[in-house]
Amino acid sequence: TKTYDIAVIPGDGIGKEVMPEGVRALEAASQLFDFNLNLEYFDFACAEYYQQHGKMLPDDWFEQLEGFDALFFGAVGLPDVVPDHVSLWGSLLQFRRHFDQYVNLRPVKLMPGVASPLAGREPGDVDFLVVRENTEGEYSSIGGKMFEGTERETVIQETVMTRTGVDRILKYAFNLAQDRPEKHLTSATKSNGISITMPYWDERVKAMQSSYPEVDVDSYHIDILTANFVMHPDWFDIVVASNLFGDILSDLGPACTGTIGIAPSANINPEGTFPSLFEPVHGSAPDIAGQGIANPIGQIWSASLMLDHLGERDAAAAVLEAIESTLATGELTPDMGGSATTDSLGSAVVRAL
Amino acid sequence: TKTYDIAVIPGDGIGKEVMPEGVRALEAASQLFDFNLNLEYFDFACAEYYQQHGKMLPDDWFEQLEGFDALFFGAVGLPDVVPDHVSLWGSLLQFRRHFDQYVNLRPVKLMPGVASPLAGREPGDVDFLVVRENTEGEYSSIGGKMFEGTERETVIQETVMTRTGVDRILKYAFNLAQDRPEKHLTSATKSNGISITMPYWDERVKAMQSSYPEVDVDSYHIDILTANFVMHPDWFDIVVASNLFGDILSDLGPACTGTIGIAPSANINPEGTFPSLFEPVHGSAPDIAGQGIANPIGQIWSASLMLDHLGERDAAAAVLEAIESTLATGELTPDMGGSATTDSLGSAVVRAL
Ligand SMILES: CC(C)[C@H](C(=O)O)[C@@H](O)C(=O)O
Ligand SMILES: CC(C)[C@H](C(=O)O)[C@@H](O)C(=O)O
Repeated sequence: TKTYDIAVIPGDGIGKEVMPEGVRALEAASQLFDFNLNLEYFDFACAEYYQQHGKMLPDDWFEQLEGFDALFFGAVGLPDVVPDHVSLWGSLLQFRRHFDQYVNLRPVKLMPGVASPLAGREPGDVDFLVVRENTEGEYSSIGGKMFEGTERETVIQETVMTRTGVDRILKYAFNLAQDRPEKHLTSATKSNGISITMPYWDERVKAMQSSYPEVDVDSYHIDILTANFVMHPDWFDIVVASNLFGDILSDLGPACTGTIGIAPSANINPEGTFPSLFEPVHGSAPDIAGQGIANPIGQIWSASLMLDHLGERDAAAAVLEAIESTLATGELTPDMGGSATTDSLGSAVVRAL
Repeated sequence: TKTYDIAVIPGDGIGKEVMPEGVRALEAASQLFDFNLNLEYFDFACAEYYQQHGKMLPDDWFEQLEGFDALFFGAVGLPDVVPDHVSLWGSLLQFRRHFDQYVNLRPVKLMPGVASPLAGREPGDVDFLVVRENTEGEYSSIGGKMFEGTERETVIQETVMTRTGVDRILKYAFNLAQDRPEKHLTSATKSNGISITMPYWDERVKAMQSSYPEVDVDSYHIDILTANFVMHPDWFDIVVASNLFGDILSDLGPACTGTIGIAPSANINPEGTFPSLFEPVHGSAPDIAGQGIANPIGQIWSASLMLDHLGERDAAAAVLEAIESTLATGELTPDMGGSATTDSLGSAVVRAL
């Protein structure tokens, strides 16, 4: 039997509350599908660690984590203690970058039993994948402030796109599209307003397209694309986007499925040189932390994505089925309109497994 | 009786089709409310002009337009003839910048008779104003390409925010919020990921807030904000945002009201040093141009915003009421689920007036 070494990093807020449910689902799957888990917990990448050490991570975090088969992450951020850009750039964004997890894969799926805020939409109407570039683009730390503290104060931040960075995410997305029955890829752009990087993005999409003649490609500016997510969610199958646009679309998409509390994500280093990271799309949600009502599905579904990535396909599929069948019974946390707790919903998924 | 000098610039595609309806509404209002209109038509800022002259505007466009009381604009863009970033940076974005129209005001309102794609939402549930910064931020033309044509190809584009630019849009938005019964302002940010400009934006919001103690301020990252537009559109009253985020929110908001075809916008130079510009939010929509089915309401509602700006408050209100009462009768273009034409809907609004 195989053994997988998993680094477990709960983080802050509801990250700490949903992580145990993700772990229970993993452990149940390991028994059913006959593999071993070696879970190691890390207490960094959270506000408490920051308070004690003045930084989010130990200096040797890379060495501590690089040997794992995967990283299982909760959520980070507690703005009352440490500003978000400090906590995020000091942890999660470092993982994504240094482990070259350049694909952020975010499935969006309306589940049976969960009401969509969109009128008349049924499971099947909303079912697509956001493929987000995860290492460059609008998330750069390059730039600065000039004439500080005066009326002339000016801040500049650079968006950086490289051919390597753009082409590899497009290739990943085109491959995904090619393997799906729809063979349909949508590119998010804003080349009418963002006049340098976005026309470049479009240019690379065109270039890549010629290698995938079977894939049907369309392109929308991000403004009308968000509108179309609401008006025509059934139009989409694979949506490829830059770092910022992918961030937006992967919150908006799940909102159209009733709650962002169920949305999972896989931060993937496709080459396997470094460990990939699996985390819910939602954040640490300090406003509801401590009440035991956070939706654990985003974390559990992320566990499913992790199992899939590790090659445990059947286990991954079984966890996803358990999620679907549990939600269909109406065991719903408050964000989905029910009164289940983190624990009761997590337990129900494990029972369904 | 007063006379207003209005520059009419229809532009491309459906811009040419909805403009006559906007003009008819204006003319009807001028008769009813006893003011004169001096309309002058301009054939630049469109693809045809570009084909003839190799540029979007004549060299003296600024001098030709600066003396008008307002600019009434349709839509521009025909990507088969001229790339969008060339046509937009060559026209509309020049107007916004050179006439220092730093406020882009975009009302979002669910109208009686128009079905929302959001389940169970009624007129009154969706009724807010997006206040978009309109001259700087993510829409900069600064940056470039390096190692062109090689594997090392890199493109960089700068986002530029100035204290002047940020403070004046915030001030405008806070003043609006202060004057409304809700006294509620929402700021769109992304300071957890965009680590320089967006924390600066937040900092200026905090600074401005201290001068408006009565205004209730909240702030959301753009990703969850788009999600909340769908899940909780009733949470919002005044939403202030950077150029790009305002662009996104002002397409997504109208989508939640059934169609972006009705959405208007006012590009305002509040000091009155230069003319302000009024245009629908939608673009030139080459895909439906020439069929006579474009929704004219965005253009007509923009006429109402223009009248309000010119000081013709009663006329402005009457046009808006005519729009509302006409839509309530079910006279709807295809984008709203009906079979009205541009002409029949435009005529109905004029009759209602
Ligand atoms: C056409 C485009 C450049 C423009 C913008 O992004 O500002 C449009 O989307 C708008 O919202 O007015
Ligand atoms: C917390 C934040 C920096 C992060 C992001 O923007 O990438 C989050 O929103 C996400 O989508 O994973």
